[in-house]
Amino acid sequence: MNNNIVKIGVVGCGYWGPNLIRNFVEIPETEVVAIADLLQTQLDHVKGRYPQIQVATKDYRDLLELGLDAVVIATPHHTHFPIARDCLNAGLHALVEKPITLSSHDAFELIQIAERQGLILMVGHTFEFNPAVHVLKGMIHSGELGEVYYIDAVRASLGLFQTEINVIWDLAPHDISILRYILGTEPLNICSHASSCVQEGIEDVAYATLQFPNNILAHMRMSWLDPAKTRRITVVGSRKMIIYDDVENLEKIRVYDKGVKAIRRTDTFGEFHFAYHYGDVVIPFIRSEEPLRLECLSFVESIQDGTTPRTDGYNGMRVVQIIEAAQESLMLAGQAVTIKETPTMELEEGGGRSVIRA
Amino acid sequence: MNNNIVKIGVVGCGYWGPNLIRNFVEIPETEVVAIADLLQTQLDHVKGRYPQIQVATKDYRDLLELGLDAVVIATPHHTHFPIARDCLNAGLHALVEKPITLSSHDAFELIQIAERQGLILMVGHTFEFNPAVHVLKGMIHSGELGEVYYIDAVRASLGLFQTEINVIWDLAPHDISILRYILGTEPLNICSHASSCVQEGIEDVAYATLQFPNNILAHMRMSWLDPAKTRRITVVGSRKMIIYDDVENLEKIRVYDKGVKAIRRTDTFGEFHFAYHYGDVVIPFIRSEEPLRLECLSFVESIQDGTTPRTDGYNGMRVVQIIEAAQESLMLAGQAVTIKETPTMELEEGGGRSVIRA
Amino acid sequence: MNNNIVKIGVVGCGYWGPNLIRNFVEIPETEVVAIADLLQTQLDHVKGRYPQIQVATKDYRDLLELGLDAVVIATPHHTHFPIARDCLNAGLHALVEKPITLSSHDAFELIQIAERQGLILMVGHTFEFNPAVHVLKGMIHSGELGEVYYIDAVRASLGLFQTEINVIWDLAPHDISILRYILGTEPLNICSHASSCVQEGIEDVAYATLQFPNNILAHMRMSWLDPAKTRRITVVGSRKMIIYDDVENLEKIRVYDKGVKAIRRTDTFGEFHFAYHYGDVVIPFIRSEEPLRLECLSFVESIQDGTTPRTDGYNGMRVVQIIEAAQESLMLAGQAVTIKETPTMELEEGGGRSVIRA
Amino acid sequence: MNNNIVKIGVVGCGYWGPNLIRNFVEIPETEVVAIADLLQTQLDHVKGRYPQIQVATKDYRDLLELGLDAVVIATPHHTHFPIARDCLNAGLHALVEKPITLSSHDAFELIQIAERQGLILMVGHTFEFNPAVHVLKGMIHSGELGEVYYIDAVRASLGLFQTEINVIWDLAPHDISILRYILGTEPLNICSHASSCVQEGIEDVAYATLQFPNNILAHMRMSWLDPAKTRRITVVGSRKMIIYDDVENLEKIRVYDKGVKAIRRTDTFGEFHFAYHYGDVVIPFIRSEEPLRLECLSFVESIQDGTTPRTDGYNGMRVVQIIEAAQESLMLAGQAVTIKETPTMELEEGGGRSVIRA
Repeated sequence: MNNNIVKIGVVGCGYWGPNLIRNFVEIPETEVVAIADLLQTQLDHVKGRYPQIQVATKDYRDLLELGLDAVVIATPHHTHFPIARDCLNAGLHALVEKPITLSSHDAFELIQIAERQGLILMVGHTFEFNPAVHVLKGMIHSGELGEVYYIDAVRASLGLFQTEINVIWDLAPHDISILRYILGTEPLNICSHASSCVQEGIEDVAYATLQFPNNILAHMRMSWLDPAKTRRITVVGSRKMIIYDDVENLEKIRVYDKGVKAIRRTDTFGEFHFAYHYGDVVIPFIRSEEPLRLECLSFVESIQDGTTPRTDGYNGMRVVQIIEAAQESLMLAGQAVTIKETPTMELEEGGGRSVIRA
Repeated sequence: MNNNIVKIGVVGCGYWGPNLIRNFVEIPETEVVAIADLLQTQLDHVKGRYPQIQVATKDYRDLLELGLDAVVIATPHHTHFPIARDCLNAGLHALVEKPITLSSHDAFELIQIAERQGLILMVGHTFEFNPAVHVLKGMIHSGELGEVYYIDAVRASLGLFQTEINVIWDLAPHDISILRYILGTEPLNICSHASSCVQEGIEDVAYATLQFPNNILAHMRMSWLDPAKTRRITVVGSRKMIIYDDVENLEKIRVYDKGVKAIRRTDTFGEFHFAYHYGDVVIPFIRSEEPLRLECLSFVESIQDGTTPRTDGYNGMRVVQIIEAAQESLMLAGQAVTIKETPTMELEEGGGRSVIRA
Repeated sequence: MNNNIVKIGVVGCGYWGPNLIRNFVEIPETEVVAIADLLQTQLDHVKGRYPQIQVATKDYRDLLELGLDAVVIATPHHTHFPIARDCLNAGLHALVEKPITLSSHDAFELIQIAERQGLILMVGHTFEFNPAVHVLKGMIHSGELGEVYYIDAVRASLGLFQTEINVIWDLAPHDISILRYILGTEPLNICSHASSCVQEGIEDVAYATLQFPNNILAHMRMSWLDPAKTRRITVVGSRKMIIYDDVENLEKIRVYDKGVKAIRRTDTFGEFHFAYHYGDVVIPFIRSEEPLRLECLSFVESIQDGTTPRTDGYNGMRVVQIIEAAQESLMLAGQAVTIKETPTMELEEGGGRSVIRA
Repeated sequence: MNNNIVKIGVVGCGYWGPNLIRNFVEIPETEVVAIADLLQTQLDHVKGRYPQIQVATKDYRDLLELGLDAVVIATPHHTHFPIARDCLNAGLHALVEKPITLSSHDAFELIQIAERQGLILMVGHTFEFNPAVHVLKGMIHSGELGEVYYIDAVRASLGLFQTEINVIWDLAPHDISILRYILGTEPLNICSHASSCVQEGIEDVAYATLQFPNNILAHMRMSWLDPAKTRRITVVGSRKMIIYDDVENLEKIRVYDKGVKAIRRTDTFGEFHFAYHYGDVVIPFIRSEEPLRLECLSFVESIQDGTTPRTDGYNGMRVVQIIEAAQESLMLAGQAVTIKETPTMELEEGGGRSVIRA
């Protein structure tokens, strides 16, 4: 595809959709041509702000016949799959909100359709476009942190309660996608614990422990029921420690030059003493850029250049597989559940890109 | 016993002992008569500051023959049991640092000896004497918080690494004793996960989930490897939410008048909407009193009045039992372990107080 | 005027203008018909976002002939006066950004024109529409704070340097308008001190002390050169103390129930002791509303109902008079300068509303 | 003098005296031999804690005949002068709490006596021994901050009200001594403003502006009436900016690599644009040492080595002179008062060290 304007339709104008619309409206290479939502009030609200949008419809299928290049899907989670399937089948590139689907089987089907059609399938794991997360990943991979010991992630607030998915499906995609991205490896297994405080049968408070290769433990706390809005990831390495606090406006990352080493005494057999190290704290300057804008730009770039986006369908499916394992662990009273192997993709055409990766 | 001066010996003058000595020196009803420690430098250091202490010895057994009333034991954990046993057998009341012993069997033996001898056995669960914890307990029990939904406890810092016990044995006694105290119930089971980052075989990072009656979930995060010193307990109720942050000097407790209710719609079957409530935050004034001083005063009062201290041997044993279950869960890859029934105490004398409680 | 749509033109589309445009676009009772700016890029930027704006011109005088009802002026400060004068003379209501003019003489002329024409003249003292400031005023006037002792205001950051006005003209309008509003009185005199660090002759760091009636001292710190963005007002009363921190997102106001009283001893002549009182801190819940939107709504309401806005031309002139006194104090090496009496308005028509107030 | 034990007497065992006693007790090179206080309860309290103190008396004159080497004076301010004079005349070195005296004339007399007698006279300006202040001074003098633009100092809390001195005499010694120390120059003049809120005639809230050489403005806010304990100094330089917050436990200093430069446009005459620079924030690790201990050690070292202490009598007198100028400015409604030249010391003996310095 050349660098012509990318014509975009947005399905879902509720809570998150307008943020996507605002960003695509402000990207010169894209034009938001059409929107769809079941509620007329949402359509009117968006049209009122962006009169340049040409089509506003209650039926997303109307968007399939407008000559669009791509759709952005920000609808209720259980509708991601059928809408994305229809759009891909109609030849449109698709950016789907997280979680990409509510089953890895469905995600795999989307991947297969996109491959067959030669289309971009991308999932809205916004944090992988967050400059602070890039700094975090950079510090891990440069070796500045030393060996990664463990990671603790907390995502809590008095949140928006949902009735169709629990807090794990709602919040874990963020932290799982961050963990996979910054570590560059896949978790081996997961244990989870949860409680349903407000609605029977819908967990609103959950904890999960993930085992990553190299003996790295990662723990996630997720809660819709917390008085203080918290979005914090602590990465502890053998040389330095980092706190990434996404609630902070300016000082999102703090790098602590501190740690401890166990040193075997030479004079006695098997005994240790501990050498503590305390140094400066550095708060690196991070350019303030809206991660969602970077995500939208990445989608457009992938469409224009035919490149695989960072958060492609496979990435979306992988996160769903891990959440499925977490759900299974809940059923098994917290027992560790091994995370499934990625399905092998047997494309009829033969020439397709395989989703199996290192 | 009448209100005569209580003569005290302190065994262990390392990290924590001097704090106990300072407090007992300043209580008019007590006199620190003797101290014991294996290291002469520690003895000299304490003697230099408190020249009025009459006996300083490397052998704690010397303290058994000085006509003391009570001993305070702040030695390495594995020595708590033999030292406490000897002191109780010698007719001395005992205040033992936490954890009271490294096995519930040993704790039970201490309880039995104390019962037989008619002596006070107390464990140093200092937080049960913390005015902020009292405020927390009061708000739960008055109903101000509504139904308790769940509790999240974090205790982390770049801590003092230990070689004989792991982070659970080191830090969990604090939060377990707080949880039992503020809820007034016993946990049913526990799951735990941990990692040994710095020393092989000694966990320095751990997570545990406790199930309490009335469907109350409690989660503990414990870490010797964290850049930010954190001692925070979040109690979420159906009406209000509390954060107790013990690192704060003045504003330890914040009461958030906020929450959410799921309301069943009357017009549709089975659907909910959510009513959010946002109100003021109140930071109650809490009188600044050193919890350790209140603990020491309580020990003296129990000795003088023959009353059972709040943190008696049973309390100490209960906490050890819970940690034992946590350890067992670690061995079982995080499986839930039911917490043992309290052993029934069959005292030969018959007339003894039973340790079996509601 | 009836409740017809108010047709609005906005002059100045630079830093602040777009915020005003956004708000007026979203108010159903108003329509932004035209915009003016010297720079085509600014016009294009705004038009791109709001294609419904009909006229975009480089000459604000074009706006005088479009049948508008009102103009909003957010241009460089020295142009406020001539533009507002022309607009009022053309029969348009005017909302002028702060400071309303760069001399009280000019402000008075605007007031007189508006009076003669029966038009609304309003100044953009946004903080008088800030819900947190309303809470502050309410607590002072209800007596909850007791007698007001003093007020300390800080407004500092690494700010937007200006070349035509100094930091006092830039920042003092905010705090002076807040002080007048919450106290409900006029300052008697002002002393000021300043330094020109970055540009010769343009003060970028300044301090001012205002004396209000009832012996109330108010102090303002203003700085374009501060590493930490600070917008804090401390109001100390005889019963309670308040900190209003506008940088905080949620917890803007903290009410401290603490204080001290000097108590004359009855047994000795003339001696005092001090009774300290320490109580709870309360952080009142404040509904999150954009102050600028409330300001814009107030402008529209005044136009529709013919009522005097809270921040009318007189209010704007008063603030300018106080800044003029501060400037004079700078020339006099910090000597106290009495703040001018408000000029008496002698309207020829006789029937006009007098600007002289209690 | 050789390195024999320095025998010390402490006069004044009220609020601050016990801190001095604790430090001297713990310094191996000193022995606290005697204490004096008008109140028996204070004497008893200190003796109870330090039974090794040999003499406890209500009359400080008893200390003059005990063969002491030095006295430490922590009595009510108006008694500093007569007590210090008597002690120096009796041949004892003296460490006097701040302010050294309540008039510069008296301070000068003490300096003269000490010179004549060849004794150490030191004032307790503790902050000049504070490691964080040393870091601050180092960053200014190394040029890391660039040219110092201005300094803002705040020292406020709900403080200990005094009846004999106002808030300037109480709090300004801290910040004035810090300012002189870190800048290494003397202020030229001072303006001050204050209010007496709680006690008639005793100012409890005050502001002062000091002009230092090189066009450096320094501003001090002092308050006994503030809800939040604040001890913060902001130093703004042309290259970097520093906040020193002494209330923080660990992160006392933050160095902000940010600033702005006015750059003259080459294409237009006389116009500027501004180049903003935003970089990292660094929180340097500062070893935790009690400043008072370092002060006490310095006193001992000066006695042993015959060296002039950093905070000698001249330093104490200089601070008093500046406060006297601030007081005079209060009388003159805030007018700038030039700070007096240091008196020339004409010692009869001729060989004395002159107090006149660069």
